[in-house]
Amino acid sequence: MSNLLKSWITSANSADTDFPLNNLPYGVFSIGDSDAHCGVAIGDMILDVTAAEEAGVLTPADVPVFDVPFWNDFMELGAEAWAAFRADLTAALAEGSEKQAALEPHLVAQSGATLHMPVAVSEYTDFYAGMQHAKNMGSIMRGSPDLPANWLHIPIGYNGRASTVVVSGTDIHRPLGQTKAPDTEMPSFGPCKRLDIELEMGAIVGTGSTMGQPISVDQADAMIFGYVLLNDWSARDIQGWEYQPLGPFQGKAFGTTISPWIVTAAALEDFRTATPPREKELLPYLAENKPGLYDINLEVTMQPKDAAKATTITRTNYSRMYYSAAQQLCHHAVCGCEMNAGDLLGSGTISGPTKDEFGSLLELSWAGREPFTLDTGETRSFIEDGDTLTLKGHAQGDGYRIGFGECRGTILPAVKNPFE
Amino acid sequence: MSNLLKSWITSANSADTDFPLNNLPYGVFSIGDSDAHCGVAIGDMILDVTAAEEAGVLTPADVPVFDVPFWNDFMELGAEAWAAFRADLTAALAEGSEKQAALEPHLVAQSGATLHMPVAVSEYTDFYAGMQHAKNMGSIMRGSPDLPANWLHIPIGYNGRASTVVVSGTDIHRPLGQTKAPDTEMPSFGPCKRLDIELEMGAIVGTGSTMGQPISVDQADAMIFGYVLLNDWSARDIQGWEYQPLGPFQGKAFGTTISPWIVTAAALEDFRTATPPREKELLPYLAENKPGLYDINLEVTMQPKDAAKATTITRTNYSRMYYSAAQQLCHHAVCGCEMNAGDLLGSGTISGPTKDEFGSLLELSWAGREPFTLDTGETRSFIEDGDTLTLKGHAQGDGYRIGFGECRGTILPAVKNPFE
Repeated sequence: MSNLLKSWITSANSADTDFPLNNLPYGVFSIGDSDAHCGVAIGDMILDVTAAEEAGVLTPADVPVFDVPFWNDFMELGAEAWAAFRADLTAALAEGSEKQAALEPHLVAQSGATLHMPVAVSEYTDFYAGMQHAKNMGSIMRGSPDLPANWLHIPIGYNGRASTVVVSGTDIHRPLGQTKAPDTEMPSFGPCKRLDIELEMGAIVGTGSTMGQPISVDQADAMIFGYVLLNDWSARDIQGWEYQPLGPFQGKAFGTTISPWIVTAAALEDFRTATPPREKELLPYLAENKPGLYDINLEVTMQPKDAAKATTITRTNYSRMYYSAAQQLCHHAVCGCEMNAGDLLGSGTISGPTKDEFGSLLELSWAGREPFTLDTGETRSFIEDGDTLTLKGHAQGDGYRIGFGECRGTILPAVKNPFE
Repeated sequence: MSNLLKSWITSANSADTDFPLNNLPYGVFSIGDSDAHCGVAIGDMILDVTAAEEAGVLTPADVPVFDVPFWNDFMELGAEAWAAFRADLTAALAEGSEKQAALEPHLVAQSGATLHMPVAVSEYTDFYAGMQHAKNMGSIMRGSPDLPANWLHIPIGYNGRASTVVVSGTDIHRPLGQTKAPDTEMPSFGPCKRLDIELEMGAIVGTGSTMGQPISVDQADAMIFGYVLLNDWSARDIQGWEYQPLGPFQGKAFGTTISPWIVTAAALEDFRTATPPREKELLPYLAENKPGLYDINLEVTMQPKDAAKATTITRTNYSRMYYSAAQQLCHHAVCGCEMNAGDLLGSGTISGPTKDEFGSLLELSWAGREPFTLDTGETRSFIEDGDTLTLKGHAQGDGYRIGFGECRGTILPAVKNPFE
């Protein structure tokens, strides 16, 4: 395990910052009305790497890769270039660096910056790799905690909607949709009544695979560029009525929020941890040769519109998952499905074994049968208009942390139903 | 109903051509090693609109839209520009046109051209809107022809994989994947044994919607740029083991083939036909104000590797569907899901009421229990290596046809299993 690396940017040298020199996560930001630039978070500052590249101070490739407001072009350079650039950045931002004077003009304060999507999402896939969550969903939706027959053999996933993946801070309208109560003959149309979150990690694919060619878990692991926090907003009533037989669709398509900083796999390397023991042996193509999960502490807070402070409603850890992102990516490509830079893989909802670790309101309120109480005294089963939900996460090092920043969204009232 | 419109390109004036002046479908082509250009099929020729735009002969916008090898930039100009360009093209290619001399240098023979994807697919969604197919699938997969409870209320769809949508003529490897026989305890990994097609139409979204804002069926109809034939290759054994509870994934992700020419909604206008009578009343948001389907004759042929000729294995019509593409697109966006130019919507498998109209081999062979016989005397239940499957389609006018060209793919053997 490394120690805190010291930077000439002194705010990066605190044990509490999300963004010490050990982290160096990648994002996209703008100041006022200026163009969005690629940036690296360091302490309470952002290093404008678009400007630094233009000035010739940091040049990861022979051609510009930061002249676009997303990290896809950089990702496509491949893992060797990722490592070289990270090494350059680490040296340039370290205490005593000769580049300090050249980089200082390209630092901006995070407090004055607007953060944007760090990646142009090619396609979005969501998985279902948390065992406790799968058991809870079985109990709630199908009346039995028994896992689906394939669950211990397949990292089950489904394709989601990339067009509505948004960055932290983006408000989301309560969705309209079709639902049916168990005791009615006909469905109805209107605002979702059971609006929920799902606490997930998102893995960002950095280099692609070739159509028709499977990849191994090790190859998949090397293709993953980094991770973000991911909130898979879910309309449980819409989902419950639509999902048989072809899976979730409109219940998930209205929005997915990610944290603004891509924390690289390199920054998380010291925090690798193995998946839990197998309950049934996996087929060889899915076997894990090195620890594929990471020890990342996660929490979710909920804050009603007029509340003075947020209440922490759950705390868990990414290491609770049964399948790693590398196993998921391997399975995703194994039939010959081409994967591309910018593909986003949601881990599936992360729920630990006890109620205080559950990763969705559906589980925390047991489908509304056991509402929970916020610090303000209000109770909740699902999200009400004006509620802000925030995911946070960090890996805890010795005297430093690798933080993800926030993954935050506020739910706005449904738009007027245009069909009434 | 219009009559055949006469062109100075005489091969376009035949009753048998797929591409009379009434059609004018949009594609992308290249000759030899040259760059791919946008083109319009007319008789046995292609009008190179990239070259014509560069020469100033056809200029749909103030900025170039055909300097990229797909029609997305043109689509984003919107419906008024689509209509204006179609009117210009129709006049320019009509008998007696003053533009004949200016356009002649930009014509190339289809026989010498390689066709490419006409559109950069943003996201791909597949629906399940054929009633006979849904009943057949219920009978075969779940033991009952009863429709799912939601089927008569929702145009059921699921998100598919855009990265493996390929143009007609692209060979597809038999996929590897995980399957489980009913009588074994453990699943196994290897080449798919039940490889299938699905006969579908694909609708191409030409203009987008805004995240958070629903759209009506009429708005959706106006957003659809055109249609292609679509073969949703399906690995039935992989699909059968994986699809509960979150829907098809790897069983569908290895390839989807489309025909190379986008037949515009404008070209199909005369062939509109209403969806069949409702068995249950739809919610108002899905109501159809004008006929949303089209009378398009469809057929599928199958040709083993060494066979002298192909056998027609099914003939049906797009008008068999229960939901239109406009209804599907409306439902897709109704929760606030942003739709974008280049989104591709598969209709779902088109199966008519009798066996000679079934749109998949699973249905034609009733899951292998009733193999069918080809003209060569060979029998088939599913696809064998080397088989070529071809979809064809056209709307039949009075003395002319609006044809789609071919949607063809040959199945290659599985790649070597790298996990053995």
